[in-house]
Amino acid sequence: MGALHEGHARLIERARGESGLVVTTIFVNPLQFDRKDDLEKYPGPLDADMEVCRRLGVDLVFAPPVEEMYPQPLACVIEVKRIANHLCGAFRPGHFAGVATVVMKLFQIVGADKAFFGEKDAQQLAIVRRMVKDFNVPIEIVGVATVREPDGLALSSRNQRLSEAERKQAVALYRALQEAERQIAAGVTDSTEILRLARAVIPPDPALRLEYLEIVEPDEMQPVATVAGAVIVAGAMWVGSTRLIDNVKVQRTGE
Amino acid sequence: MGALHEGHARLIERARGESGLVVTTIFVNPLQFDRKDDLEKYPGPLDADMEVCRRLGVDLVFAPPVEEMYPQPLACVIEVKRIANHLCGAFRPGHFAGVATVVMKLFQIVGADKAFFGEKDAQQLAIVRRMVKDFNVPIEIVGVATVREPDGLALSSRNQRLSEAERKQAVALYRALQEAERQIAAGVTDSTEILRLARAVIPPDPALRLEYLEIVEPDEMQPVATVAGAVIVAGAMWVGSTRLIDNVKVQRTGE
Repeated sequence: MGALHEGHARLIERARGESGLVVTTIFVNPLQFDRKDDLEKYPGPLDADMEVCRRLGVDLVFAPPVEEMYPQPLACVIEVKRIANHLCGAFRPGHFAGVATVVMKLFQIVGADKAFFGEKDAQQLAIVRRMVKDFNVPIEIVGVATVREPDGLALSSRNQRLSEAERKQAVALYRALQEAERQIAAGVTDSTEILRLARAVIPPDPALRLEYLEIVEPDEMQPVATVAGAVIVAGAMWVGSTRLIDNVKVQRTGE
Repeated sequence: MGALHEGHARLIERARGESGLVVTTIFVNPLQFDRKDDLEKYPGPLDADMEVCRRLGVDLVFAPPVEEMYPQPLACVIEVKRIANHLCGAFRPGHFAGVATVVMKLFQIVGADKAFFGEKDAQQLAIVRRMVKDFNVPIEIVGVATVREPDGLALSSRNQRLSEAERKQAVALYRALQEAERQIAAGVTDSTEILRLARAVIPPDPALRLEYLEIVEPDEMQPVATVAGAVIVAGAMWVGSTRLIDNVKVQRTGE
């Protein structure tokens, strides 16, 4: 979706290292925005993005206008079932159907052998992986680790919208995820208890509103009552009028 | 879906004439059956089908078992909107979502440059064409004319289920479509009137039950009140316990 930051740069670098030809798609997809103001506020600095792509050795940038991607209303879209029922899917109606649909279109248009997605959008990554399996799309999906600021805040194009004060508060989400990680490492397995302790880390500030904090299994993104094996702890938090998401993958010690 | 007849043979011959390599997919797709008994009764003579493919010079037959196409429940399916709301789509809930989903899978698996579909399944053909546009699938869809018995009955794998008496009665659907065609050629433009005259052609026999008879425009399969330009007259009729469909494309004279 453009507004390229260091997280995107890692995707491109990884692709560059593994591929003969690298294509970057830049498209702010209206279909996946559930709120009009979020779409309108979404940054779109194409010239700066092109410069980043040039510097990183991208061979081709595909940045179509909306009319080229959606010349007429769609008669067919991808419906995402159970895997979209929790986390962001529960709070952003139609969001993942919009994501899956545009990603399928981009896969068909570009014809790439591999596609690189950030792990920061964990549910999106799980859905794209599953869509590729479900429709037998001949493409390999590569997940790339979340890039963080020195204080731990996950890089996001939406971070640009934060005021200086909000920017400092925003790290609370990652702190909560780290607390959950610590509790799991310490042997706590009850999700309710882990999440209670993690939530307690977020300061009681009116500017911060936790939308969700959940522990899910990594394939179908379903909540688990008891932590066993690999899980994802994922959260969404409003900082003022900006919504941020983050997650950590945790494997119980000894497993 | 196999049970190959002369209509399928024309698809293969056409493909053979236009292609370096011809792949035939044979798969009775459970996802598109809205009635369990219809799926169970659907003929599946794979040896005979293979012989037809051999005779017609097919290079590769892809006839996967159900577990290979659906190793796990799908998390993503294709949702078909407005274009599936009339004709068969109105009477077979989920049918075209099942068709679109399996066709998308087959397109991804086979990687063909062209795919050949019969015009007998007019709504299916319209939906596949639109799906390919909507998702930018790099494949050309070729429609091939319906093949008919000497009396006019459209070839269908389901014709095998008809008793001798039913087989004779079955042509009533095509007779009704021809009557609609005649009325349009004679200058009648009111769809209600055309369909009334067409329905009157079907004998009042308890074994024959017309499910629908409609006049639609050929892109989105929406009913038209007044015939202007190209239309499709399409119907579905039960003959005893067998459901048959048929359609004719009509262009108003002088247009």
